[in-house]
Amino acid sequence: MPGIKIINVKVRDVRFPTSLEQHGSDAMHTDPDYSVAYVVLETDTELKGYGLTFTVGRGTEIVVCAVKALSTLVLGKTLEEITGDFRGFYRLLSSDGQMRWIGPEKGVIQLATAAVLNAVWDLWARAEGKPLWKLLADMDPVKLISCIDFRYITDALTEQEALDILVKAKPGKKTREEQMLRDGYPAYTTSCAWLGYTDLQLTQLCSEALAQGWTKFKVKVGADLQDDIRRCSLIRKLIGPDNTLMIDANQRWDVNEAVHWVTKLAEFRPLWIEEPTSPDDILGHASISKALAPFGIGVASGEQCHNRVMFKQFLQASALQFVQIDSCRVGSVNENLAIILMAAKFNVPVCPHAGGVGLCELVQHLILFDYISVSASLSNRMCEYVDHLHEHFRSPTIIRNAHYTPPSDPGFSCEMLEESVQKHQFPEGEVWRDIEKQ
Amino acid sequence: MPGIKIINVKVRDVRFPTSLEQHGSDAMHTDPDYSVAYVVLETDTELKGYGLTFTVGRGTEIVVCAVKALSTLVLGKTLEEITGDFRGFYRLLSSDGQMRWIGPEKGVIQLATAAVLNAVWDLWARAEGKPLWKLLADMDPVKLISCIDFRYITDALTEQEALDILVKAKPGKKTREEQMLRDGYPAYTTSCAWLGYTDLQLTQLCSEALAQGWTKFKVKVGADLQDDIRRCSLIRKLIGPDNTLMIDANQRWDVNEAVHWVTKLAEFRPLWIEEPTSPDDILGHASISKALAPFGIGVASGEQCHNRVMFKQFLQASALQFVQIDSCRVGSVNENLAIILMAAKFNVPVCPHAGGVGLCELVQHLILFDYISVSASLSNRMCEYVDHLHEHFRSPTIIRNAHYTPPSDPGFSCEMLEESVQKHQFPEGEVWRDIEKQ
Repeated sequence: MPGIKIINVKVRDVRFPTSLEQHGSDAMHTDPDYSVAYVVLETDTELKGYGLTFTVGRGTEIVVCAVKALSTLVLGKTLEEITGDFRGFYRLLSSDGQMRWIGPEKGVIQLATAAVLNAVWDLWARAEGKPLWKLLADMDPVKLISCIDFRYITDALTEQEALDILVKAKPGKKTREEQMLRDGYPAYTTSCAWLGYTDLQLTQLCSEALAQGWTKFKVKVGADLQDDIRRCSLIRKLIGPDNTLMIDANQRWDVNEAVHWVTKLAEFRPLWIEEPTSPDDILGHASISKALAPFGIGVASGEQCHNRVMFKQFLQASALQFVQIDSCRVGSVNENLAIILMAAKFNVPVCPHAGGVGLCELVQHLILFDYISVSASLSNRMCEYVDHLHEHFRSPTIIRNAHYTPPSDPGFSCEMLEESVQKHQFPEGEVWRDIEKQ
Repeated sequence: MPGIKIINVKVRDVRFPTSLEQHGSDAMHTDPDYSVAYVVLETDTELKGYGLTFTVGRGTEIVVCAVKALSTLVLGKTLEEITGDFRGFYRLLSSDGQMRWIGPEKGVIQLATAAVLNAVWDLWARAEGKPLWKLLADMDPVKLISCIDFRYITDALTEQEALDILVKAKPGKKTREEQMLRDGYPAYTTSCAWLGYTDLQLTQLCSEALAQGWTKFKVKVGADLQDDIRRCSLIRKLIGPDNTLMIDANQRWDVNEAVHWVTKLAEFRPLWIEEPTSPDDILGHASISKALAPFGIGVASGEQCHNRVMFKQFLQASALQFVQIDSCRVGSVNENLAIILMAAKFNVPVCPHAGGVGLCELVQHLILFDYISVSASLSNRMCEYVDHLHEHFRSPTIIRNAHYTPPSDPGFSCEMLEESVQKHQFPEGEVWRDIEKQ
């Protein structure tokens, strides 16, 4: 490992024309072209580190530009230097005296930081010859904690408290790891009910999913109340009373509107309402949580929650009943470790956001770590799954009986097939040139 | 006005090498090169619109890239189309179905939105032949309100409440406008005590400022407690017991650390502690406010508060005693109108953030509007002033007896001298080529 020096940072804008078929459509993102800023760290050895951040089309070039700006902080560093003081390296990227102004730790620069750090973690896991979840699960708690920047969260979680949580979860780790390897981690599907789908598509996809063993389903809502009532009613009938239904408004409502709207859908017994309002509105989510508690409906959010400071407050304010970590929105594994540990302290289940491009591949590692090393619980826990675009990855997710199978290949599972990358590069790839011609 | 169509959006990366002399240095931004992403909207008439967003060096190219991405939404629009439904246009920029993913309404994309919208407001004011503050002060309340996107804030401020605030402030507007034209708006200075300055520089600058009539002074703190005690003691002695002292930590501390540190500086009687911790930490600021209230020290923040949803919560949680709006951090005038009106509803004074490049030029218009049309009060109110880089503007701020003189030139005062722009363009401008050579 001492010999592995990063000598080049390659970043590309890769887009998939998903908007053509309304895949991924929701109340706020009506025409997403699922995309990534795709990073490859080249080293002076044969090893490479692969990372990405997920985007939905236009604007990906801005994230690519931000990755290039961050590259100067990464080039020439050895993997040993980085992992020897990963907290310091994290802060180098997130708190550069000039670049922090355009964040800090939010938006484009945070997405770019995630892409770069995801690639560093991939490189580390490959250097150790382990899938990332196993690298994390095997890591000494003190070393793990040393990867986290506790700045701004010590009023909710101190270093010592974080360490205590990890130490407390040590007994049973081996058993839980074996259980995961045998059964996998429970998943739910969002593939059946995008907002742009017709009732016919919805019925067909839902029936297929049931036949494949899925028991937990998420429906996009928020554009039109009567449509939502019809769609939720249809899905609840299809899946029966015992399966689980979640609804997702993708930030469509104001606070009072959210309460009013979701109350009208309460009869379909959703487990949670996801992103009822602005992802920045901690106090709003707290109000909504309080208002919906009597209906047994929780509030879930996180895919656009931009850092640990925001998650800290969502937890302090009892504003979320489900913490939806995302592998790309915050500062990679480093920051997600902080969030997972805070969720454990506040006793709130982590149910990761996935889908998009590569998000399933990435986040499965984190939720496996959560179960094996932190929460030790599957109660009210599950990881999102969407069955799109996995064919572009070298080590795609494997779903068996609606469970994620722990990855076995070394790394963080987000290396893309070079052929896919080249075909989908924007705007020069073959796929986009063909669309341009039409 | 119907004839004014935007036919080109020009954007440039302009940087000033301020880090060479530690101007602008604080506890988190130790080597800022004050910069702007500078936007010129070219129209099919002789009129142009000038706008900018402030940055501190590296990363400005990312904001430039974002402005280019937003340009497609602006090109071909007439001024009448935009101002006829400014709320709609605001949402077009802030909620593009693809680009919102990399925000939403935060970080790079929000800074770029500000630059573009600042230029649109400049164009509008020029088309009306008025300085922006006068355009706003003269505007019918219903029209003003129609520029604001109330999405996500209706639980704190409804459209009707906003209208009521404006209507209630109508009496006395003419008198207040005359007063402003005669006396100007009260300012405070941050130019004397940047963190990188020596005690000698500090003494000299402070004495000069006193001689020029300044009575309110801000000191940067947060890097070293003993240094802070020495510097605050020195300044309090220099300015005497009756003048006003503010301190600014630029996000250096965790919550408990902030309370501890500021308590040690309480003897110097600062009016406020600015940015004690993460700008995202609403609940943290609320805790700090509560702990410092017995010492008569308020909490101020806002220059990195990224949108109206965050300001809403800071107000709801009584987390700020001074609201520091910024002309570039949020979505331009449109969003600042929302913030100013929310501050009025919650009865919290607005004390704008300025300095940098062009921030004084821009924000003076907003605070004049606040006084004339909204708050009608100068109690505990003042606008930041820093005496750097004004010489690069066509209509620079005029300070008389420590007061901002209302601008008289049409527009938003942020047109730069073309010669300055060319000399400081990064990296190809003369100034940067010279530094490169050294």
